[in-house]
Amino acid sequence: MTKLDTVQNWTYKNELDFTYLSDPKTIQYLTGFFSDPVERVLALVVFPDKEPFMFAPALEVEAIKDTGFPYEVYGYLDHENPWQMIAEHIKERVANPKHAGLEMDNLTISRLNALNSQLSDVSFDKDVTDFMSGMRLIKSADEIEKLDAAGREADFAFAKGFAAVKAGKPESAVMAELEYALKQKGVMEMSFDTLVQAGAHAAEPHGATSDNVIKNNEMVLFDLGTVHQGYISDSSRTVAVGELSDKQKDIYNVCLDAQLTAMNYVKPGVTAESVDKVARDIIDKAGYGKYFIHRLGHGMGMSEHEFPSIMEGNKMELKPGMCFSIEPGIYVPGFAGVRIEDCVHVTEDGCKPFTHTPKELKYL
Amino acid sequence: MTKLDTVQNWTYKNELDFTYLSDPKTIQYLTGFFSDPVERVLALVVFPDKEPFMFAPALEVEAIKDTGFPYEVYGYLDHENPWQMIAEHIKERVANPKHAGLEMDNLTISRLNALNSQLSDVSFDKDVTDFMSGMRLIKSADEIEKLDAAGREADFAFAKGFAAVKAGKPESAVMAELEYALKQKGVMEMSFDTLVQAGAHAAEPHGATSDNVIKNNEMVLFDLGTVHQGYISDSSRTVAVGELSDKQKDIYNVCLDAQLTAMNYVKPGVTAESVDKVARDIIDKAGYGKYFIHRLGHGMGMSEHEFPSIMEGNKMELKPGMCFSIEPGIYVPGFAGVRIEDCVHVTEDGCKPFTHTPKELKYL
Repeated sequence: MTKLDTVQNWTYKNELDFTYLSDPKTIQYLTGFFSDPVERVLALVVFPDKEPFMFAPALEVEAIKDTGFPYEVYGYLDHENPWQMIAEHIKERVANPKHAGLEMDNLTISRLNALNSQLSDVSFDKDVTDFMSGMRLIKSADEIEKLDAAGREADFAFAKGFAAVKAGKPESAVMAELEYALKQKGVMEMSFDTLVQAGAHAAEPHGATSDNVIKNNEMVLFDLGTVHQGYISDSSRTVAVGELSDKQKDIYNVCLDAQLTAMNYVKPGVTAESVDKVARDIIDKAGYGKYFIHRLGHGMGMSEHEFPSIMEGNKMELKPGMCFSIEPGIYVPGFAGVRIEDCVHVTEDGCKPFTHTPKELKYL
Repeated sequence: MTKLDTVQNWTYKNELDFTYLSDPKTIQYLTGFFSDPVERVLALVVFPDKEPFMFAPALEVEAIKDTGFPYEVYGYLDHENPWQMIAEHIKERVANPKHAGLEMDNLTISRLNALNSQLSDVSFDKDVTDFMSGMRLIKSADEIEKLDAAGREADFAFAKGFAAVKAGKPESAVMAELEYALKQKGVMEMSFDTLVQAGAHAAEPHGATSDNVIKNNEMVLFDLGTVHQGYISDSSRTVAVGELSDKQKDIYNVCLDAQLTAMNYVKPGVTAESVDKVARDIIDKAGYGKYFIHRLGHGMGMSEHEFPSIMEGNKMELKPGMCFSIEPGIYVPGFAGVRIEDCVHVTEDGCKPFTHTPKELKYL
């Protein structure tokens, strides 16, 4: 049974006339084709007992066919009304549709209104979000292979980034050199904006790489990832430039202890929230609890925004094939920031990371 | 009157108890703070007769305050329920809210449901989308200045990119070199994935930069842009490597004629669709009409997805301060693709481009 068959089955079981899928990552997961259409419209429509179809901007149609999608693909031009056209294609297959599934966590209110205005007898009240998240939650061997490959690209990027670090150099130059090395190697896409943050700047966990100059005796935080055949890497390392004070070293070592202990703790059957707690307890006990202001990790795979979320309140039991980040961070405002992160997949008796860059404190 | 005052005024006039703003670009436009929270929650809530507040992930709160936002900023931790907290902060200001404005083109159905479940007496039925688009439609002198600066960065990128082009080199290497040069100059962010496409590959208008090797006697299409203080550039040029055939030259010259004629035609009072038609007529008449499968242009400013859309059916009259792309393209499958694009702002008697890289066919 293909993944598309599974969604067809779900549509049938829920007695829906069709399911309207709009999240570009869902469409990529089900068909292999990825494009972010932004204000244009891309949809995959699945029926209980008919072939699905895709609907896309005219300029994407050839690319969709090239990926081998074996069903109808309809294109529209910018001046045409996509909602009217989608409704017509649905009605060609179901004369009088009444019930539909949709991705409520993706579709905007405007778009639902536009679709509903063309299909006014349809109740769009069945959310397929949880079902899709569930499908994507457990990664196959093939997906793990792609995540491993993306992880190797991240390791390569760290090596290039560490080699570029030097007191007196701006964060931005280090980022430029590591991304250049990746592109020269044919790695075309980062999974998010690469972070290189030095000294107190690293205490802004959602800051950005800046023109700040790296100084001696401070730490430099890297957070980066690539995209490999639609699957991402996401990893953080923090390194030292020159000598560090005892307090800097202490922050680093506490963070590392938390990261290693949590990785070691992960196995099938433990809850997501308990993994967060194991790491958080170590940081709390060392007195840095108030400086760890985000969850321990996020699910990942085709993006860094999947399930399971590794945080307080998430009682989901971990299972083999689940993939997520383990990324404790200690951010002391005005002083320093440390984050150490690997993404891992749960195995039969533990977990394995996708990245292998050493984590002992590295002095550059 | 500040931009936020304008939204407060709109909220008052529409007899709303509050307006819930969620589009990160809207929030940046109104406050100067930008962050894409992805699955986390970022909101700006405006009241008719009280001070607005921002609600954000805890790890963003300091950054928001640093931008000088003069009102309350509330943070939430990953394991807290943001919707409940937002509802409480609203009720602290309005005891019994009944009517709210929202951005229907941004908010997903799931998020509206989550918000509404905490504020069950509120009708979320007034869309602020058109009002916000209208505010952003006419750029101020300050905005034009930033767009000009972003345009100069794009011109710099073209110069570096053209210098890197050589038969035998992959598209990806050319992209790597031009982006490296930008980052070395301190330009940290591209507005979209840089395109370098050679030969027949350029006939896929939504393709991506690949490892394809550039050959002699073909054309190379560049489409790129940067972000400067929140404002973008977006420009395309097509250059020749070695000698071209008459047909290649003809395609280029027809496209250039369409681009220059449309730029020359733009002035206050003409409709958006008529600009598209002026360019399209030239391409149609030359027999390439079926190879021009997108609108002539899109509005731009803080993103490349603003108004006005320069396409058939858009009867909006152009006014000074409107900004959009003029980008005719001719894509002959299996043969070649040409696109020539400048973004412009409408002036009192015409328009001015943000990019100035020459457009006569350049032989490298």
